Amino acid sequence: MTKVILGMSVSLDGIAGGQSADADGWAIHQAILGWQFPLRSWRQAMGQEGGEDSVDSREWADSFARIGPQVVGRTMFDFGYPHWGENPPFHAPVFVLTHRGQDRIGKEGGTSYSFVTDGIKAAVEQARAAADGKDVLLAGGVSIAQQALAAGLVDEISLRIAPVVLGRGVPLFGASQADLRCVHAVQGEGAVHLRYEVRITRPAWSAKVPAAIA
Amino acid sequence: MTKVILGMSVSLDGIAGGQSADADGWAIHQAILGWQFPLRSWRQAMGQEGGEDSVDSREWADSFARIGPQVVGRTMFDFGYPHWGENPPFHAPVFVLTHRGQDRIGKEGGTSYSFVTDGIKAAVEQARAAADGKDVLLAGGVSIAQQALAAGLVDEISLRIAPVVLGRGVPLFGASQADLRCVHAVQGEGAVHLRYEVRITRPAWSAKVPAAIA
Repeated sequence: MTKVILGMSVSLDGIAGGQSADADGWAIHQAILGWQFPLRSWRQAMGQEGGEDSVDSREWADSFARIGPQVVGRTMFDFGYPHWGENPPFHAPVFVLTHRGQDRIGKEGGTSYSFVTDGIKAAVEQARAAADGKDVLLAGGVSIAQQALAAGLVDEISLRIAPVVLGRGVPLFGASQADLRCVHAVQGEGAVHLRYEVRITRPAWSAKVPAAIA
Repeated sequence: MTKVILGMSVSLDGIAGGQSADADGWAIHQAILGWQFPLRSWRQAMGQEGGEDSVDSREWADSFARIGPQVVGRTMFDFGYPHWGENPPFHAPVFVLTHRGQDRIGKEGGTSYSFVTDGIKAAVEQARAAADGKDVLLAGGVSIAQQALAAGLVDEISLRIAPVVLGRGVPLFGASQADLRCVHAVQGEGAVHLRYEVRITRPAWSAKVPAAIA
């Protein structure tokens, strides 16, 4: 059965990215994601040769193998689109949550970009409908993550924790609230890999009114 | 050789405690620490019978066995003192960092409370001098943790991550910055147990001036 997985890399203090696209934002991006770039599995998904075979590489490959469609935010799309190229690393439909609708873009290798203007729930539903037995990945940014948690749409949280405390940047969870159950914890060379089943999420800032998912 | 260990329990979003001592503060305290109270090893340290033998209990016991003197903040001391009783769970010298000096208090079972008024560095030095081959634990609160990290006094960070996202409360790390290396990651029933060697800490808010420890 298709699960909706919130999957992101964060620092040990829960930072998912920089505040801005300047040099410090780039340093934060590198600190959180730098461990991933040398991995054989990651390079393979990017269409590159070589790379390190390691616990991190195998963890990354195992996760990626489960993933079908992805949901991403507009900022992430605008930032990534020029880099993802004509044969993007998704190899599956990507649903971009945006206020500005536009026509679907088809790419090589199974990737397409569809633009969803009627909210996170609709975006997740469209991704689910295209999943064909695979899981749906909510890949970022932080706004997508927090909206999906608040709406009770997340089945699993998959975190890669980079070994750094940043003390600045954008926290992944913000005011989100959730009760979880850890189902996977593996120490890699570059990151700790944690997977949590989501048991209950509560609307942000209203701890007194728990709302069961499922 | 004696190491200085910052050891605390936090939520997955890095919250170490509540903002206040009201009902919500208590709920946060329970969410972060509730997994610990049924453990056999924890109950034993508290002078209580029974409890669960589990991965969490063994992890807690292994950590506790390494610990000699502890350094705690004044707020934590004032909050805990009435509960810790005549035979407190520390069984070692405790150094309380405070602005209000007072005479040393001796208790049964090896615990004593000494009050240090000349800063975190002096408190850690006094604890080190009393360690007798064991490690020094910085047990909280958040202010002790952040002061010690900023001063480059921490050798290892030992976190128990409770399976909850709180979305409110006091973050452990605040503006702290550090480069780490994970040396231990174990999935327990109630918490994930992570240990990190501290490689470099940087003064908070000044990322451009790294300062090597050691």
